[in-house]
Amino acid sequence: MQLETAIRLRRSVRKYAERKVSRTTVRKLLDLARRAPSSLGGEPWHFLEIRDLALKRELGTIKNKHCPPAKRAFRADFLASVPVIVLVCVDRRRSHGRILENGLLATGHLLLAARAEGLGSVYMSAQTAERPRLRTDIKRLLRIPPGIEPISLIPLGYPAERPAPKRLRPLDTMVHRDYF
Amino acid sequence: MQLETAIRLRRSVRKYAERKVSRTTVRKLLDLARRAPSSLGGEPWHFLEIRDLALKRELGTIKNKHCPPAKRAFRADFLASVPVIVLVCVDRRRSHGRILENGLLATGHLLLAARAEGLGSVYMSAQTAERPRLRTDIKRLLRIPPGIEPISLIPLGYPAERPAPKRLRPLDTMVHRDYF
Repeated sequence: MQLETAIRLRRSVRKYAERKVSRTTVRKLLDLARRAPSSLGGEPWHFLEIRDLALKRELGTIKNKHCPPAKRAFRADFLASVPVIVLVCVDRRRSHGRILENGLLATGHLLLAARAEGLGSVYMSAQTAERPRLRTDIKRLLRIPPGIEPISLIPLGYPAERPAPKRLRPLDTMVHRDYF
Repeated sequence: MQLETAIRLRRSVRKYAERKVSRTTVRKLLDLARRAPSSLGGEPWHFLEIRDLALKRELGTIKNKHCPPAKRAFRADFLASVPVIVLVCVDRRRSHGRILENGLLATGHLLLAARAEGLGSVYMSAQTAERPRLRTDIKRLLRIPPGIEPISLIPLGYPAERPAPKRLRPLDTMVHRDYF
């Protein structure tokens, strides 16, 4: 799929068909995710491909538990029935002080690559400064060692919903010449 | 350009031809950047399209001044001769506690969209927790009001160098099934 098409069609999907997502497909997406830029070329990424039902259910529970009040409308229960969840992590020692940057740029590739494969996904945070327990609960559940930091939690599946097109704010209100 | 091709061909470029980058091209890239996901659909982005020579030169000086020791090999002097620099910012009030995430996902779109247009770019940070003066110096220079936070500084130009293909770490060392 064309890059521009993938960007324009990508939406946040939270309802997925039961159709299986193959290991080969996930591997292809991860290969594209890890081609993101990284600080000093450290390639600090680790990806957990989570298919175990009990783990997916528990990730939903953890996300609900640490959900900020403004986002309570978005329950994470659906994680239990997602075909596969990818947890994007970074190795602190390979990140050169750019943990979030490295993790987020790979996550962005993953979201677009998923759309290009006809898969739905949605960005979900696996860390937040205000609720440090989100990160530590995820680390404990998935036996993630010290120095490896979860960044994002990306459900992947063939979409069973078609979100309405985005109504965007006018681009001109966001663009400035030279000075703000 | 195909998404997969853009991802595979994208490299960090720091030498640019003198060829002009049109406002229309930049606008197209920013339109794709702001289609990134954002927390609660806040679309918190602001983009500064910087072409003024004195400002580009001063941005190079600021980046050099706050460069961490490990990255001193990458001088930022080249910013003075880049056709255009985009500063990606986010509005704190529209970010719902996800300032970096929102800024980084739009930046990732911008880097890929640039490559698809035949443009070179390179990720440069406009903020870092360890050197808060980087952010405040940039804000002062570009008259950025309180509540608007610079995230990344993206030079754009037609490439005058062709970086060697990446030698990547084996993907298998990054992928884990269920548990780490």
